[in-house]
Amino acid sequence: MTLIKGNVNVEEQAIEAKKASKSLLVLSESEKNEALNHLADVLEREYETILEANEKDLANGKEKGFSEAFMDRLSLSKERVADFANGLREVAKLEDPTGNILSDWTLDNGLQVEKVTVPLGVIGMIYEARPNVTVDATGLALKSGNAIVLKGGSSAINSNGAIVDVIHKGLAETKIPKEAVQFIASTDRAATNELFTMKEHIDVLIPRGGGKLIQAVVENATVPVLETGVGNCHIYVDKEANVQKAIDILVNAKTDRPAVCNAAETLIVHEDWLEKHSAALIDALQQNGINVHGDEKAVSVIPGAVPAGHEDWTNEYLSTDIAVKTVSDVNEAIGHIETYGTKHSEAIVTENDDTAHLFLSLVDAAAIYHNASTRFTDGGALGFGAEIGISTQKLHARGPMGLPALTTVKFLMKGNGQTR
Amino acid sequence: MTLIKGNVNVEEQAIEAKKASKSLLVLSESEKNEALNHLADVLEREYETILEANEKDLANGKEKGFSEAFMDRLSLSKERVADFANGLREVAKLEDPTGNILSDWTLDNGLQVEKVTVPLGVIGMIYEARPNVTVDATGLALKSGNAIVLKGGSSAINSNGAIVDVIHKGLAETKIPKEAVQFIASTDRAATNELFTMKEHIDVLIPRGGGKLIQAVVENATVPVLETGVGNCHIYVDKEANVQKAIDILVNAKTDRPAVCNAAETLIVHEDWLEKHSAALIDALQQNGINVHGDEKAVSVIPGAVPAGHEDWTNEYLSTDIAVKTVSDVNEAIGHIETYGTKHSEAIVTENDDTAHLFLSLVDAAAIYHNASTRFTDGGALGFGAEIGISTQKLHARGPMGLPALTTVKFLMKGNGQTR
Repeated sequence: MTLIKGNVNVEEQAIEAKKASKSLLVLSESEKNEALNHLADVLEREYETILEANEKDLANGKEKGFSEAFMDRLSLSKERVADFANGLREVAKLEDPTGNILSDWTLDNGLQVEKVTVPLGVIGMIYEARPNVTVDATGLALKSGNAIVLKGGSSAINSNGAIVDVIHKGLAETKIPKEAVQFIASTDRAATNELFTMKEHIDVLIPRGGGKLIQAVVENATVPVLETGVGNCHIYVDKEANVQKAIDILVNAKTDRPAVCNAAETLIVHEDWLEKHSAALIDALQQNGINVHGDEKAVSVIPGAVPAGHEDWTNEYLSTDIAVKTVSDVNEAIGHIETYGTKHSEAIVTENDDTAHLFLSLVDAAAIYHNASTRFTDGGALGFGAEIGISTQKLHARGPMGLPALTTVKFLMKGNGQTR
Repeated sequence: MTLIKGNVNVEEQAIEAKKASKSLLVLSESEKNEALNHLADVLEREYETILEANEKDLANGKEKGFSEAFMDRLSLSKERVADFANGLREVAKLEDPTGNILSDWTLDNGLQVEKVTVPLGVIGMIYEARPNVTVDATGLALKSGNAIVLKGGSSAINSNGAIVDVIHKGLAETKIPKEAVQFIASTDRAATNELFTMKEHIDVLIPRGGGKLIQAVVENATVPVLETGVGNCHIYVDKEANVQKAIDILVNAKTDRPAVCNAAETLIVHEDWLEKHSAALIDALQQNGINVHGDEKAVSVIPGAVPAGHEDWTNEYLSTDIAVKTVSDVNEAIGHIETYGTKHSEAIVTENDDTAHLFLSLVDAAAIYHNASTRFTDGGALGFGAEIGISTQKLHARGPMGLPALTTVKFLMKGNGQTR
């Protein structure tokens, strides 16, 4: 593997991105779209360069003994590169999120006020293994008129570098300056840390990856952060839950894709319901290979369940394991979520609309479900067309973030000499 | 002065606020409005208690030799308390920013999606001398369904404490629990610092005051911050500026209220315009007692001007001093603003619409003016009804912030067993 260290100047790259972001401000929507479509064509044309670089990362990953799942995420093919290209074409089709006049009015003195959406400026993207983020994030940034500084994981550095080389080659034939896409070609963690405090040149940091990466960025960055991802999601099965709905939702939220952030990690179940429907529940858990870590009551009812501790309530399993907590009413369930939830996605299963209303009102999370699986918290599933990530913070953007999350506003004031 | 130290438990107060914020979630708009109107009445009724406490702060301020302007901001009267009360009544009349369905749609599988505005939760307000912030911030927080933790400046601690006592007395007769308004009765800076990292209990910190306070919060807080206030605003007088408009706007932006954040701090002037209209400019500066700190060219043209250095371009004077920078075109002006501006309010004076368009497109600030004074960047002036502050950040809220800045969203999903 080509270790690239010490020969990058992160600040210089960020300054170049900032400068390029100004050129993006004066491009039309069609100029941006033409550029994205052209990038898609060039990626498809140059796929071999990308695959060659990917081979290096795969060889290195094999040497390091990375897991099969990890290697699969890292691995590219002609088809996957074509998927990247099609992703860019889809982004080109989306509505331009900038230049929207959100409101406009005229003061009594004739001063015209317009509140209009504009790009944020420069986006700093810090991400882990998947090389597709390099293309996806670039497409979303450019479509919304932003420059981007990419800092990918070291295990994909050759693939990412080759992708960005191809992007630069493509941009040279468009109205977008190639400096609008900066790639930090370093495996040095210090390079990432430099991005954390570059407030003058970078307008927002978006970490994509595991909880540790996200925490490191949130805790150390003075650049504003769009926090994404960690989902310790709960399914609360109420006393008045329909058995079939409860089981369908639980099994889907737990097993459809256990490793994603909108998968369920804890089942909170009303003790009366558990007592009454334990046979059906146990059957479903066993048939779907779900391993239970339960509180005392759950362990006493569910065969094979092991006792759950603080870690079980707190962490994501990202596997087919589940924690099971029994409660005596909806308020106890809400309290458990308040203590352990990550404000991502939470669900209640009940036929009682008042109980559901209470849950939807009091639970503090980006997405709250009544009688549906938490798996729908996803830009694609909700029809957003593209997703930068799922925000678990409350400011700026919450839940699945589409292109508008990459914009801010300006008040434009047009007068003829007004003073106050 | 009653120094209150060491006998407060900030975390306990923040936890109480968080708990109270849940009760606010289930109140109706009219219950919140009734509470605010009742608080207004109680404040007016109990004004003497507040004035007595204020006397202590004033005596202490006199002893410490605070400036006259500072003492004036600290000083309360029956009328000022009545103004506070009327402020609450005005806030009660504003539209409730929560419970607004921003969008709603139904997926093909029948899952109903609603994106609805909800309170942020708990607001941490860190502010300096003015006791009116205690009432204003409380009113805005409660109206938007948020609990609030107040940490005012030590010079107003008796006044603020008395105001909160009266508020608590008033709240006891409303549906809002008094724990929704927490006052950190400490002059210890450590109490403020504790608020910085209380992510679990406080959803947002809003610093109101001088640049140093704001910087301390921005740099040290892990709780998300709504950054307000510092305005190093520029007036760019272009080659094609109308003389009367340029002078009217400059004088108004500089002298109407020099100490506020939307006042102008630097005049950037095109060298041709300066040469041609120096007589009119010099006359206006002298008549309005404006002291010039200029670059070489400005000093050579404007009598009495002293040379400007880095500090002059960087800092707010908040007085009738002004920095004057000469440029040879609009791009140089934009570059100067990019280097020294604080992204608050920037103005161009020109009769050339293309030049104005370029300036409005390329300058990165909350509010950008063509032929008008920067003084209109103000919630009151723009008709927002109430203002929490003027955001100079890009995420969440930018420019004057009304009640909607104190809300976030939830996605509420209603289904009948949908799985993915």
